[in-house]
Amino acid sequence: MKVKVLQDILGANEAIAKRNRKLLDEHGVLTVNIMSSPGAGKTSLILQTISKLKGKAKIAVIEGDVASTVDADKVSEQGIPVVQINTAGGCHLDANMTENALNSLLLADIDLLLIENVGNLICPAEFALGEHKKVMLLSLPEGDDKPYKYPLMFAEADVVLVNKIDLLPYLDFNMLAFSKAVSGLNPRVKIFPVSCKTGDGLEEWLSWLLAEITRRKSSHSPAGAS
Amino acid sequence: MKVKVLQDILGANEAIAKRNRKLLDEHGVLTVNIMSSPGAGKTSLILQTISKLKGKAKIAVIEGDVASTVDADKVSEQGIPVVQINTAGGCHLDANMTENALNSLLLADIDLLLIENVGNLICPAEFALGEHKKVMLLSLPEGDDKPYKYPLMFAEADVVLVNKIDLLPYLDFNMLAFSKAVSGLNPRVKIFPVSCKTGDGLEEWLSWLLAEITRRKSSHSPAGAS
Repeated sequence: MKVKVLQDILGANEAIAKRNRKLLDEHGVLTVNIMSSPGAGKTSLILQTISKLKGKAKIAVIEGDVASTVDADKVSEQGIPVVQINTAGGCHLDANMTENALNSLLLADIDLLLIENVGNLICPAEFALGEHKKVMLLSLPEGDDKPYKYPLMFAEADVVLVNKIDLLPYLDFNMLAFSKAVSGLNPRVKIFPVSCKTGDGLEEWLSWLLAEITRRKSSHSPAGAS
Repeated sequence: MKVKVLQDILGANEAIAKRNRKLLDEHGVLTVNIMSSPGAGKTSLILQTISKLKGKAKIAVIEGDVASTVDADKVSEQGIPVVQINTAGGCHLDANMTENALNSLLLADIDLLLIENVGNLICPAEFALGEHKKVMLLSLPEGDDKPYKYPLMFAEADVVLVNKIDLLPYLDFNMLAFSKAVSGLNPRVKIFPVSCKTGDGLEEWLSWLLAEITRRKSSHSPAGAS
């Protein structure tokens, strides 16, 4: 009975996520679902990405939070279109919330849509939003054993950003053991060590993102389709 | 409809939690539900508490995880009774899982039961397990804005441990602003800054715990009841 209810919820979510994806494809908007534990650095990554891609890509942001508009305010100060979703206690975004947010954005004017999910390593991995890519952040202070304890998130990610590498000298974090554990769950994943505080290591992430935007645009444009 | 289902779930959980609490009271077992984000230091706190209270209190542990027995193995190495609950994807423990775990423990032989909840700042706050006290850890690298973004957890806690204070020199964390935000949500809360790595600040936590154990034992014993 419980399982049946969960299947119904996930099934309904999947149908709306497909609708969102179609809409985003029609407008050539690369959409990235960014997930992590609370405080791992999702907002810092978004702010750095906005700053470094200025003039290179038109960005919009959807901010998901249980409560408050703290993060949306920071993004809005950068002059970027942002829609806040407050889940009112809910522990993840879903496709329905995302659809409502998409309706408030001028999609024709966007190359890259960054969706900051609720800070949670568990449920966000189960709910598709319509995104093209799933990106997760693991911050060094969380420890290198997290892939064993939250395997679905690591298995579902297209990119894992290992954030806060500036703290490496003060922590016991085995990057090799971590990378091995992640690759064991997900052989195709890309792992980028970064510091969203100092900017270190962000070049690889930004190159990947720009390549994906270009790929999406060219497959969307009439020229690319011919 | 959705709300009705949630009410049913929470109502059923509450009934089992009350049954658990009654059982724990009958045996004079102080029970503490420990909650935090992934990697904030719940297991380290438990290991430190076991080590420092050796000879002063008989401790048992329930380990909640989405997957793996990494944490339970570490506790078991200390010669402490431990029961592992794997939630198989579930993002929090509930009273029913806890009841099953209690059935595997010799309660008459325990003064203090530490329950390590699943790493998640959201849903664990909604599900009573039958515990006497809710303790949450916030680790410094998560940032001082977390009370605004995850208010229920901070509002429900009896104690907030601010962990990883050894990293303070390398982070922008405003302890005063954080304490003010927590007290605003929860005026009766106790806040203890600690480092589970170095052991700094743990005395206050251990004193609080020992006082609670004594209080529980004395109200439970026939002498105390007379």
